[in-house]
Amino acid sequence: MAKPPKNAISPTRGEDFPEWYQQVIKGADLAETSETRGCMVIKPWGYALWEGIKEYLDKRFKETGHENAYFPLLIPLAYLEKEAEHAEGFATECAVVTHHRLEAHKDEKTGKTKMVPAGELAEPYVIRPTSETIIGAAFSRWVESYRDLPLLINQWANVMRWEMRTRMFLRTAEFLWQEGHTAHATKDEAIAETHLIHDLYEEFAREILAIPVIPGEKTEAERFPGAENTYTIEAMVQDKKAIQAGTSHYLGQNFAKAQDISFIDKENKQAFVHTTSWGVSTRLIGTLIMAHSDDDGLVLPPRIAPKQIVIVPVTPKEESKDAIIDACQALAQTLRSKVSFGGNPVSVHVDARDMHGGAKKWEWVKKGVPLRVEIGPRDLESRKVCVSRRDQGSNEKSFLEREDFINEAGNMLQEVQDALLAKATALRDENISECSDMASFEKQWNVSEDEQPGWLLCPWAGSLEEEEALAKKHKVSIRCIPKGMQKGASTCILTGQSTTQWVLWARSY
Amino acid sequence: MAKPPKNAISPTRGEDFPEWYQQVIKGADLAETSETRGCMVIKPWGYALWEGIKEYLDKRFKETGHENAYFPLLIPLAYLEKEAEHAEGFATECAVVTHHRLEAHKDEKTGKTKMVPAGELAEPYVIRPTSETIIGAAFSRWVESYRDLPLLINQWANVMRWEMRTRMFLRTAEFLWQEGHTAHATKDEAIAETHLIHDLYEEFAREILAIPVIPGEKTEAERFPGAENTYTIEAMVQDKKAIQAGTSHYLGQNFAKAQDISFIDKENKQAFVHTTSWGVSTRLIGTLIMAHSDDDGLVLPPRIAPKQIVIVPVTPKEESKDAIIDACQALAQTLRSKVSFGGNPVSVHVDARDMHGGAKKWEWVKKGVPLRVEIGPRDLESRKVCVSRRDQGSNEKSFLEREDFINEAGNMLQEVQDALLAKATALRDENISECSDMASFEKQWNVSEDEQPGWLLCPWAGSLEEEEALAKKHKVSIRCIPKGMQKGASTCILTGQSTTQWVLWARSY
Repeated sequence: MAKPPKNAISPTRGEDFPEWYQQVIKGADLAETSETRGCMVIKPWGYALWEGIKEYLDKRFKETGHENAYFPLLIPLAYLEKEAEHAEGFATECAVVTHHRLEAHKDEKTGKTKMVPAGELAEPYVIRPTSETIIGAAFSRWVESYRDLPLLINQWANVMRWEMRTRMFLRTAEFLWQEGHTAHATKDEAIAETHLIHDLYEEFAREILAIPVIPGEKTEAERFPGAENTYTIEAMVQDKKAIQAGTSHYLGQNFAKAQDISFIDKENKQAFVHTTSWGVSTRLIGTLIMAHSDDDGLVLPPRIAPKQIVIVPVTPKEESKDAIIDACQALAQTLRSKVSFGGNPVSVHVDARDMHGGAKKWEWVKKGVPLRVEIGPRDLESRKVCVSRRDQGSNEKSFLEREDFINEAGNMLQEVQDALLAKATALRDENISECSDMASFEKQWNVSEDEQPGWLLCPWAGSLEEEEALAKKHKVSIRCIPKGMQKGASTCILTGQSTTQWVLWARSY
Repeated sequence: MAKPPKNAISPTRGEDFPEWYQQVIKGADLAETSETRGCMVIKPWGYALWEGIKEYLDKRFKETGHENAYFPLLIPLAYLEKEAEHAEGFATECAVVTHHRLEAHKDEKTGKTKMVPAGELAEPYVIRPTSETIIGAAFSRWVESYRDLPLLINQWANVMRWEMRTRMFLRTAEFLWQEGHTAHATKDEAIAETHLIHDLYEEFAREILAIPVIPGEKTEAERFPGAENTYTIEAMVQDKKAIQAGTSHYLGQNFAKAQDISFIDKENKQAFVHTTSWGVSTRLIGTLIMAHSDDDGLVLPPRIAPKQIVIVPVTPKEESKDAIIDACQALAQTLRSKVSFGGNPVSVHVDARDMHGGAKKWEWVKKGVPLRVEIGPRDLESRKVCVSRRDQGSNEKSFLEREDFINEAGNMLQEVQDALLAKATALRDENISECSDMASFEKQWNVSEDEQPGWLLCPWAGSLEEEEALAKKHKVSIRCIPKGMQKGASTCILTGQSTTQWVLWARSY
């Protein structure tokens, strides 16, 4: 076999980050584009990442009192119209269902038969871009008294937003997500729920995905259509752009009033509920890829890896082949029964396919499996194993006694997890700087296409219009008013007004 | 409180079976209709049943080598047209997406602003009624050599068929399902896969849902559009109608040829793959309801019940209230840690809500929880518990020592599971009779609307047209050529031809 290329992915991150991203997805066999405009096929390795995300979050949602339910895919137009800001926010990107069957029509010119839409609907439907309105209609039926509150519902579903520019995982016309929708008797309770989920998302990103996201509140310009407050987690990925990785909204009584979600309170008075909504999507997978992967492909934090350890038998000679494969299977069994990681038995795969060892190795490198173990004829005799960590160079390896590896495997996985979080945290912290004047603000964004500016933390008291104008001028946006990064009284970089509000400006996906 | 009604559900099964079914769903809070035509909202208790079904089947699919993936919701019309029979089969019930945004238009007459579809698509899409064509297009890209086979894929998804008459769970415009799609190098392998899944479905229905379905093959008239063979599991529910509860199809090379899913075989020749597809849906929940529920509401087999045991504190006096609730919580904890059922810790809920005990009891009766436990002031002193089995009369109860109940709870759940299966099996076997002549065949279906005919097992050698004519005349259909019920050589009831094929005729949902 030819010597493997210096890097498994071409181009590298430095050469062309967006194209590198596509090639990492291809190399790891995560997803591919389809003939449905802007929609992707999520392949098994990619879908397994989504299953990992679902499993963890679903458990946490249930532990915090939420129940799953399922609401219709199609939303009557009349529902969408009820909340004006919301309708306006989604009107430009809705897939609309207008007919309910197909008829065969013969083309006069070509003589060919073609299916055409038939059975026009009196009232069209939109495919849900989000479900506030259809779930609100249900809440309006379900809530009568304060005894029915809080109502804590989550839905795992597909949604559709007809985006003009798409990018796999990060922005696709159809995507998978969860959307939580809750109703509460008081504003305080609703706001507490919004924060509960915001914190849960931040913890999930940090602990499981090893992404040190910055939590904070959105400014008015970036708020969810119809929300009073939007809380976000913002990730910095390796090209220093920001990705909004999850949001939690306090909707006030806007939807409750638009849809008549009211109840009899403890004082026997009619009142409107306060609602929240919150969601994360398959976008998290795109964020994960951009946060950790390297020029050899995907790098997965062990807590989310579908397989945490892959064991590859190295079988140059036919006579020792069976014994080596048996030893690999035995090691896998021992690991599964003796090693736990993140509260579950460790996930181990033995790759006994009849193909070249080098090709196999590179496949698992590109798929991002945290630990690769090789056992060859000599290792069999010496009872050793050869272990490689995905977060280290592709040629680094260490030889361990079999028993030592069994004892150390859990710790090694934790070390990989910690190392990825530390590396991402260092990147983040090195690339956020304070900025207190317009001259340095403008300079920050006046860089060539190839250079990647970091984020700026600025005192800010500008208006909605001023924010939008500045954003447009420099192709940047305020990502959030970051929690835990407020530096006290200062002067707004634009208006010169005194302010205590600090915001993060950045380029974003 | 007023004495509870004789039965919690009105009308009873005997009075009006279809309306009883709707009332059981309402009483158990499983689902409700929505303003989206033919679509339902699946409420938390109903969705928990679907989660139970998913969890079990997903595990079994993975154990048998299948991987999950996700494909686009929207199918290009051109895809659907490729397999002619398939296209014809679904054309009359497709939701069609023709536009990709909305525009506000002012109505000249009313002066009101209304959203109308805009941005017409050059090529419309249909919402998937099933995914053979879009998954086939992916398979065509994925399969190159025999090394890529078998390809064993499953998808959990929503699908849409614009049915004219709908009934909650049993037939809705949108429903949730899993669809397996596999590709194989040989016909034998593909047929083996079709049977593997058919057997898995039968076992699941019997072991988990306690429904003794009859497995068998469909005749040509009832086959899936585009399939060579369709295998089905048919359930008899309490009004003796049949429900097709799951199907597994051998698709031959029909889709492979239509979509060019070909590979280089071991002899280095180009060949078409053989494909299968198979699915079960939220229809299983409708089948479950009709199979076991009684005039007091839902009855759940313990293996699928979201909560297997509910403990209700009976607290007539304020002074003993806390002690009783504590005892209930302690019992629940002990049960969860000591009792396992179906391989998992038993699922126990303590209902400590501040409401009348009678109302609570009937709520759990209507929700079908297998075991209800009450602890009151006297039970607290005597260390006894009062236990009721949902499959027995609503006033039957037994008093057990607390320790005895802990030791017996697993067995009691198994007894409920077994009793439900036995009862459903007896109903099924009492209502299938052999029929060897047309006179008794015709007599069977000439009954008043209120009477429910059972199923007939008949020797059959009729043609497709003869079957369809007979089906139309008597509003019946051949449910399947049942496995294990073939009685050997006989004479076709219609044609008088000698035949060894026996079929089951029945009314169905």
